[in-house]
Amino acid sequence: MFKKIAIFGVGLIGGSFALALKQAGAVAQVVGAGRSLASLERALELGIIDVIATSPADAVAGADLVLIAAPVAQTGAILASIQPYLQVGTIVTDAGSTKGDVVASARLALGEKISQFVPGHPIAGRESNGPDAAITHLYVGKKVVLTPLSENAETDVKRVADAWEQCGALIHRLSAAQHDLVFASVSHLPHVLAYALVDDIANKPHADILFQYAASGFRDFTRIAGSSPEMWRDISLANQDALLQELDAYQLKLTQLRGLLASGDGAGLEAIYRNAQQARHHWNCAIEAAEKQNKEGGD
Amino acid sequence: MFKKIAIFGVGLIGGSFALALKQAGAVAQVVGAGRSLASLERALELGIIDVIATSPADAVAGADLVLIAAPVAQTGAILASIQPYLQVGTIVTDAGSTKGDVVASARLALGEKISQFVPGHPIAGRESNGPDAAITHLYVGKKVVLTPLSENAETDVKRVADAWEQCGALIHRLSAAQHDLVFASVSHLPHVLAYALVDDIANKPHADILFQYAASGFRDFTRIAGSSPEMWRDISLANQDALLQELDAYQLKLTQLRGLLASGDGAGLEAIYRNAQQARHHWNCAIEAAEKQNKEGGD
Repeated sequence: MFKKIAIFGVGLIGGSFALALKQAGAVAQVVGAGRSLASLERALELGIIDVIATSPADAVAGADLVLIAAPVAQTGAILASIQPYLQVGTIVTDAGSTKGDVVASARLALGEKISQFVPGHPIAGRESNGPDAAITHLYVGKKVVLTPLSENAETDVKRVADAWEQCGALIHRLSAAQHDLVFASVSHLPHVLAYALVDDIANKPHADILFQYAASGFRDFTRIAGSSPEMWRDISLANQDALLQELDAYQLKLTQLRGLLASGDGAGLEAIYRNAQQARHHWNCAIEAAEKQNKEGGD
Repeated sequence: MFKKIAIFGVGLIGGSFALALKQAGAVAQVVGAGRSLASLERALELGIIDVIATSPADAVAGADLVLIAAPVAQTGAILASIQPYLQVGTIVTDAGSTKGDVVASARLALGEKISQFVPGHPIAGRESNGPDAAITHLYVGKKVVLTPLSENAETDVKRVADAWEQCGALIHRLSAAQHDLVFASVSHLPHVLAYALVDDIANKPHADILFQYAASGFRDFTRIAGSSPEMWRDISLANQDALLQELDAYQLKLTQLRGLLASGDGAGLEAIYRNAQQARHHWNCAIEAAEKQNKEGGD
């Protein structure tokens, strides 16, 4: 049981965390903080938070746990604003999609209090956002990756893990560097590729005709290009090195494919398509089995 | 009303065409032909076809309409096999995903009977296939693109359009060259990109860890990489020129994006992401409005 949790950013991610913990009876009071007073007032109205913090000091005073659920580029500034008021025994965590940059800015902002910061990343994004998008069951069966620091006490890491588990999430642990490489590959690169395709098509003189014939395959492929441009600008820059590395590997693969296509090498093309199809089939079966198990476990 | 329709390839596409026309009471007899006797027997069992053709001559004798719904690479051979038996008044159409190559092979195979061939492409692919995948309502509200030849009589084109309209489809017309450029852009290129991404990831030494963290965005982005490798090998080769052109434009776009990322140009990245997000939003709203209208029209 947490007596007080402070949440910076009361939108989809922070709001759903609060709702889930309240539903589980795991928190007595949730205090909301953030840049937008309108969002905070809406979160209060929706019962996501119990009170709006009047200052960073007020937000964290007496809190067991602080969650930073704001865009990653703001994490450093938020941590700096609460650093002077962080009491012994208050644990801080975050929900940023990148971890290397968050850890670096946390070290700068928190100084000797860095041991109180346990970095995390819930894998539960959606296109919708804001307090109205928050839902109690967002994290049920979803992964939360924690990337603990060498300075963290294991009891603090466990306390953060417990909070997410109360929300129904499955806890994984990676180093910040591993995390950023993994997500550059399976999340950040696909976003860049989808944005690039839609931008490419939209800029052609006959874009209207092209869009007219785009069908369900195109819709699924480009769904992630519907995500927030600001958020993905920040993620791209925050994970610049790993993303450049993945982008270069992908360009090499495309160049290889182009060569096969230009030379009419059907067997070569088919081998790549088949390897991809089989790998995806294998992955999808595993994912569906895990989802089924989560659903049955949750009933 | 068609008294006899012959269908070469009784899977998802050909089978659904037959089921829809039967449902509409628009055909008296459907004859099935194809390479796989097992598929033909299954189609007979499912009531998709009424009889299995004993030969190409038998298939087309007395038919008003012949649909070729086999992989595009087989179209030429099938047309050549029926050419000697094609009677005056029999119209032939196809369901191939590429049109330039189909028209070229049709000219070779049909010779002076080319005027009887009206090329078409129903935009209604799915990942499933075979007679068991065929469904009556597959084409309801879907587009069918006809790419008529200068040799076609307008009454013949209209007769093919009528058949598809009886299935609930919406008829569009393009030239074969326009068709191939459009679909290289909004369908063939995305397939290549999705296959390339999954193959790239699957070949990495730490592929298992990467797939473990792939989530719903990845699933949607790569859904089309679950499609048939043989079919997409054939489509890639059949539409080689247009696909190479689209691939080159896309690689240029990626190179531009890489430059912005490498130089930390957040505003430049955001401008591309925003253009893509807005274009996709605009497109998606139009698609959803059209779907809603189709649904209401169908009730």
